[in-house]
Amino acid sequence: MIRFECDYAEGAHPQIMQALIETNMEQTPGYSTDEHCACAREYIRKACEAPDAAVEFLVGGTQTNVTVISACLKPYQGALCAASGHINVHETGAMEAYGYKALTLESPDGKITAAQVKKAWEDHIHNASHEHMVQPGMVYISWPTECGTLYSKGELTAISEVCHEIGLKLFVDGARCGYGLAALGNDVTLADLAKLTDVFYIGGTKVGALFGEAVVITNPELQKDFRYYIKQHGGMLAKGRLLGIQFETLFRDGLYYEISRHAIDLAMQIRDAFMHCGVSFFFDSVTNQQFPILNAAQMEEFGKKYAFELWETVDEEHFAVRFCTSWATKEENVKALVEDIKRICE
Amino acid sequence: MIRFECDYAEGAHPQIMQALIETNMEQTPGYSTDEHCACAREYIRKACEAPDAAVEFLVGGTQTNVTVISACLKPYQGALCAASGHINVHETGAMEAYGYKALTLESPDGKITAAQVKKAWEDHIHNASHEHMVQPGMVYISWPTECGTLYSKGELTAISEVCHEIGLKLFVDGARCGYGLAALGNDVTLADLAKLTDVFYIGGTKVGALFGEAVVITNPELQKDFRYYIKQHGGMLAKGRLLGIQFETLFRDGLYYEISRHAIDLAMQIRDAFMHCGVSFFFDSVTNQQFPILNAAQMEEFGKKYAFELWETVDEEHFAVRFCTSWATKEENVKALVEDIKRICE
Amino acid sequence: MIRFECDYAEGAHPQIMQALIETNMEQTPGYSTDEHCACAREYIRKACEAPDAAVEFLVGGTQTNVTVISACLKPYQGALCAASGHINVHETGAMEAYGYKALTLESPDGKITAAQVKKAWEDHIHNASHEHMVQPGMVYISWPTECGTLYSKGELTAISEVCHEIGLKLFVDGARCGYGLAALGNDVTLADLAKLTDVFYIGGTKVGALFGEAVVITNPELQKDFRYYIKQHGGMLAKGRLLGIQFETLFRDGLYYEISRHAIDLAMQIRDAFMHCGVSFFFDSVTNQQFPILNAAQMEEFGKKYAFELWETVDEEHFAVRFCTSWATKEENVKALVEDIKRICE
Amino acid sequence: MIRFECDYAEGAHPQIMQALIETNMEQTPGYSTDEHCACAREYIRKACEAPDAAVEFLVGGTQTNVTVISACLKPYQGALCAASGHINVHETGAMEAYGYKALTLESPDGKITAAQVKKAWEDHIHNASHEHMVQPGMVYISWPTECGTLYSKGELTAISEVCHEIGLKLFVDGARCGYGLAALGNDVTLADLAKLTDVFYIGGTKVGALFGEAVVITNPELQKDFRYYIKQHGGMLAKGRLLGIQFETLFRDGLYYEISRHAIDLAMQIRDAFMHCGVSFFFDSVTNQQFPILNAAQMEEFGKKYAFELWETVDEEHFAVRFCTSWATKEENVKALVEDIKRICE
Repeated sequence: MIRFECDYAEGAHPQIMQALIETNMEQTPGYSTDEHCACAREYIRKACEAPDAAVEFLVGGTQTNVTVISACLKPYQGALCAASGHINVHETGAMEAYGYKALTLESPDGKITAAQVKKAWEDHIHNASHEHMVQPGMVYISWPTECGTLYSKGELTAISEVCHEIGLKLFVDGARCGYGLAALGNDVTLADLAKLTDVFYIGGTKVGALFGEAVVITNPELQKDFRYYIKQHGGMLAKGRLLGIQFETLFRDGLYYEISRHAIDLAMQIRDAFMHCGVSFFFDSVTNQQFPILNAAQMEEFGKKYAFELWETVDEEHFAVRFCTSWATKEENVKALVEDIKRICE
Repeated sequence: MIRFECDYAEGAHPQIMQALIETNMEQTPGYSTDEHCACAREYIRKACEAPDAAVEFLVGGTQTNVTVISACLKPYQGALCAASGHINVHETGAMEAYGYKALTLESPDGKITAAQVKKAWEDHIHNASHEHMVQPGMVYISWPTECGTLYSKGELTAISEVCHEIGLKLFVDGARCGYGLAALGNDVTLADLAKLTDVFYIGGTKVGALFGEAVVITNPELQKDFRYYIKQHGGMLAKGRLLGIQFETLFRDGLYYEISRHAIDLAMQIRDAFMHCGVSFFFDSVTNQQFPILNAAQMEEFGKKYAFELWETVDEEHFAVRFCTSWATKEENVKALVEDIKRICE
Repeated sequence: MIRFECDYAEGAHPQIMQALIETNMEQTPGYSTDEHCACAREYIRKACEAPDAAVEFLVGGTQTNVTVISACLKPYQGALCAASGHINVHETGAMEAYGYKALTLESPDGKITAAQVKKAWEDHIHNASHEHMVQPGMVYISWPTECGTLYSKGELTAISEVCHEIGLKLFVDGARCGYGLAALGNDVTLADLAKLTDVFYIGGTKVGALFGEAVVITNPELQKDFRYYIKQHGGMLAKGRLLGIQFETLFRDGLYYEISRHAIDLAMQIRDAFMHCGVSFFFDSVTNQQFPILNAAQMEEFGKKYAFELWETVDEEHFAVRFCTSWATKEENVKALVEDIKRICE
Repeated sequence: MIRFECDYAEGAHPQIMQALIETNMEQTPGYSTDEHCACAREYIRKACEAPDAAVEFLVGGTQTNVTVISACLKPYQGALCAASGHINVHETGAMEAYGYKALTLESPDGKITAAQVKKAWEDHIHNASHEHMVQPGMVYISWPTECGTLYSKGELTAISEVCHEIGLKLFVDGARCGYGLAALGNDVTLADLAKLTDVFYIGGTKVGALFGEAVVITNPELQKDFRYYIKQHGGMLAKGRLLGIQFETLFRDGLYYEISRHAIDLAMQIRDAFMHCGVSFFFDSVTNQQFPILNAAQMEEFGKKYAFELWETVDEEHFAVRFCTSWATKEENVKALVEDIKRICE
C-alpha cells in the first residue's frame, strides 16, 4: 500500500534526525530556554523580517490554536472563521472547552473575505441585542486552507485592514505554511504573514519535522505572558530543545522551502494527470492536497494499491477524495500513481 | 407608547404580588429548602403526573439552560439544536463559556426533526475522524420555539424515541411553555413533556412571575447532585422561597393555564387582524409571538403608537417584526391595535 | 422557633414591597435599561461620590463574584484571597468552573494584609518557575468578612496601594456592606470603597432587598463590555427593573443605612449579653454576625427556642456558633434572647 | 558545568534514537493507531498484568494530568491532593482552566494518607452546606512524589480501599514511575499500580524517552471515549507512532527498569556521600531526587562546577537544594560530585 492519505505518515527529514542524534547527549535547560531554541528563534525572526517578534514553539496544531485563541480573546468574544475551519470542525471542541465560541462564516472553498468579516462585525454591533450575543474578537484563517486553497497577498491585506480598523486580532494557522509558500502563483511571503497578522504559526509537523509548530507573535500585547498560556495548555515541552533543534535545521539553510517545493512539484504532477483525463476537482487546490472527484469504480481500483482519504460524498455515484504529498513523498510513488491515473481515468 | 415588544415588560400577576406580601415576614430557611418550595414542587409533580421527578427552581432562562446542559454533557460532547436556538444565539456564549459546543441544525421555522437528529448522530459516528469532532450528547429544543412554532406530540415523540435509541439526553426549554399549552391545536401536555424528555423547564418569567423557571428532571442520573450545579452556576437564590411562593401561586388552582390562555386569545386577535388584511407572516405562529411582515410605511405608522421588535430585514422594502402578548396584556390595548391594523394595512 | 441563623430569612423591607406593588403594571424595557435602574444608578453614584462609576445590578452574590472575577483576570491569573473567603469555600467552585484559581492566604480572622499581598506577588515573580504557576491578578476581600470582622480605612488603603503598585485589581465583596458601614468604630464610607477599589459591590440580598447586588465599577477598563459578562454568566435579569426599584428605594432617603444600623444595634445587645456572662467569642466581630463559643449543655438549651448555626467545633466540649441579626430582626426577639443568655450562661 | 538540576536535560536513550532512525521512513496511519503503538500497548499491558487495560500515549505530564482529571470528575467535583502536588503548584492552573478545583491536603513530605482522604470526604458530606462546596471526586497522588518519597504497597492499598469505599477515583501521576520501581525498599510493582488505581501513567519524558507518558486505564468507565479527551486537550500527536516506538523500546526487554536502576544507584551514591559528611536532608528521599540542606558557603562552592536547583530557603543560613540523577547521568560525573561533597561538606 502506497500512502497518500495525509502529510504526516513518515517521521522527519533525515537532516533533522541527524541533528537530533548529534545533540542527543548535550545537557540543556528545559522548556525551550536553551541555545537551540534561541538560535531557531533568530532564524525565524530573520525569515519573517520581524526582528521584534516573539517566537514560541509548541508540539501540535490543536494545542497551538487553542493557546493562541486564549491569548487573543476575552471570555465573551469568539473567533470568526470559515465553517470548514480546523478549529470549528476537527479539534473536538478544544476552543469551546476553554470557553470560546467559533463564529462561522459560510465558504465554499475554505476562504473567507474581508467583506464577510466586516459584515459580521457590523451585524453584531448594530444588533439591539448585541450584549446577548458573542462578540467577534478575532479572525482565524488557515493558510493554506483545509481545502488546499490560498489567500493572495491582496486578499490577506484586505482582511488585515478590516481587522485593524475594527479592532479584531488576526491569526493565521500555518500548519501547512510551507506548502503555501511554495505553491505556484503564490505571492505571499513569511514577511507578509508577519506584517499582516497579529500572530501566526509556521507548521513543522506536516513539513519535515517529527512534530512542532513555531508561533510568531508580532502584536506586543499578545507577547506579554504568552508562555503562561503555553504552560497552562500543556504545551510547554520539558525537552524544549527538541523543537529548537528541528526548527534550527529547517530554517538554517532554507530546508523548509526546499522540501515544500518538492511536495508541490509532486502534487502538481498528480493534479495534471487527473486534469488531463478530464477528472474534475472538488476544490481548486494549488497546494499539496488534491481533491479529485472519482466514481465508485475508480475509487475501488485506486484503493487496491493506494491509501487516500474519502473527503465527501458528492452524490450516490461520485466521491471527492484527497491525495496528499509531503516533504517525504517519493518520486517513484508519484510516477506509479500518474500511470495508474491514466490507466483508470482515461 | 403601548408595548408589545416582549413578554416581560410588566412585573407579576397580582395574585403573586399578594402572596409575596402575605409571606414577607415569615422566617424560612434559605436556598429553596423551605415549605413553599416543597409545596410548589408537589403541585408541579402533580401537574406533570411525574411523582418521582425532581423539581428545582432557578431565576432565569440563560442560567437554567447552562445549568441543565452542564449536567447533561460530558466535556467532549455538544448539544444538537436549531441554528436559531436561544442557546446558540442569545446567551452570549454561556454554554461555550462552560466548555460546551452548540451543534447546529438548519431549520426554517425554529423546529428540528427526529430525522435530523438521527442523521447528525450517524454522520458523527461513521466519520473516520469522529474522535476529532465534538460528539452529540444531547438535544436541545424550545417549546414553543423562538419563532412561535410548536412541536406536536407526534413530533416530540419521534425526537424522544431517536434520543433514547441513540443515548442522547433530551432537554426542552419551556421559557414560554404556558403559551404552548394554551395554543390552538396543541396536543401536548405537561405530562407529555415530563414523559418524553429527560429534563425540561416550565417558564415563569414570561408567564406571570416576577422571575423564575421550574426545572422538572425525570432522568434519575440527572437528579443526582443537580443542586451542586445550580450553586456552581450562581443560580441558588438565597431567598429561594420567593421562587416557591410564585410557583405555588401559579400551580395551586390553574392560574398558569388561565393567564396563558388570556395571552393566546389576544395574540390570535392580532393574528386574525393582520391575516384579514392580507398581511403575510414570517413564521406561522400559533402562540403569543406574532411575526407579520410589514413595509416601511406601515412600520413607521405603527411605530408612532406601539413598541414592537424588528426581527429581520426581509428585503429592502419588507421587514419581519414581532408583536408579543402576555399574561399582562390589556384587552383594550389589543382592541386599539386591531383597529389600527385595519386602518394601516387594509 | 426564633431564627437567628442567617440574615436572609425574611422577604424584603416593607418600603421595597410597597414600591414593587406600585410599579407592578408599569411597562418597561428589559435587562436593566429602564428608568428605575437609571435612577438607582444615579443614587448610588452619588452615595459613592463616584460620578463616573458604572453601576450594574445582579441577582446574587456568587453570580456577582464570578462575573467580576471573569472581568478582572486573564486565564493564567488567579485571585489572592483569605483561605476563608467566600469564593474559596462556599461557591461550589464557581470561579474554578470559569477557569480561575483561588490563591489562598492564611488568615485567622478572615482578613488579609497588604504585606501578605506583596509577599505573594514577590514570591511569584521571583520564582524561577513562575511561568509554571498561576500569576496573582487580583485581590478579593470581603467587607465585612465572613467572620464579621472589618478592615479599617488604613488597612484598606494599604492593600489598595500595594495593588496599584503591583498592578493587581482590587475587588471588595460587600454582600454585608451595610452592616460594615453601620458598625461601631467603622471609619470606611462608600466613597472610600469606590476610591480604593477597582470594583466592589453593595449587597442588597442581606440588607433589605428581596435579592440584588449593585456592582460599582470605577476602573474604566472593567467598565468596558461588562454587560456581556453579566449576560454570559446568566446574571442579566429579564425584568431588570426589579433590581432598579429595590436599590432606588434603599438609596433614595438613606433607608439602606437606617436598616443596617438597626441590625447592628441588636447585634451589639446580643454581643454585650454574652460578654457580660463571660462567654468568649470565636471572632471579634463588630457587625451583624456574632460568634460566641458555647458548651454542649448551653447549645442544647438555646436550641430549644432559637435557630442558629454551628460554625466550628472548637473541641469536644466547645462549639463556635453564629447568631445573625438583620434589617428584619425584631427587638422583642432580641430581648427574649438576651434574657435567655443571662439565664443560660451566667 | 555538570548539570544535576533536573531529570530531563538530555535527549533520549540511544536505543530509542536508534529505533526512531530505523523506522523514520515507514508510512503509518496517524494518531497512535499504528502498529508500533499497538505493540507498545501490548508490552505495557503485560508489564502491568492488566490484559483489559486501555493504554494511551500523550506527550507530557501537565497535558496528561489535566486530560485524566477531566475524564474523572464532574464539573462540581475536585481532586484531593497534597498541597505540594504538581497539579496544584506547577501547572499554571491547567486543571482550573478546565474547571476543576484542587482540594489540598497538608503534607510535610508530599504524601497523603488514607485517613486524610476519608476525613476530607466525611467533612464534606456532613457539612450542612455541602452543596455550596466542591465535592471531592478523585484522589491525585504522585508516585514517587515531588519530594522524592514513595508510598509503600500498604499505604497505596489503604488509599485505594478508602477511595473505592467512598466512590472516589484514584489517579497516580507516575512521571518518575521508573525511579520508584527501582528504589531501595520499594515493594510496589506496575501490576500493583494497575490493580490499586483507576488510572495511572508511566512516565517516559524523565525516564529515557524524548517525551511521552503512557496512561494505563483499568476502570472501564474511564476507558470509554478517552481518546476524545486526548484530542480536545491537544494531546493527540499526529505522528503518534513516535510515542509507540519509544515505549516499545522501553518495554520490549526491560530497558525501562534497567535505566531506572542506573539512576537510583547513582542517586544513592550522592545521598550516601552527603550523609557520610553529616549533611541533613529536607526530605527523606529514596529515589532519583536528593534534597540535601547546604549552607551559603557550600552552595557557592558547589555552584562553581554543578548546576542544581534551589528548592526552598530553610533559614537565612540554610538552603534545601535538589540534585537529580536520571537514565542519562554519567558515572564519572557522580564520582566527581562525590569527591567534591567530601571536600566541601566534611
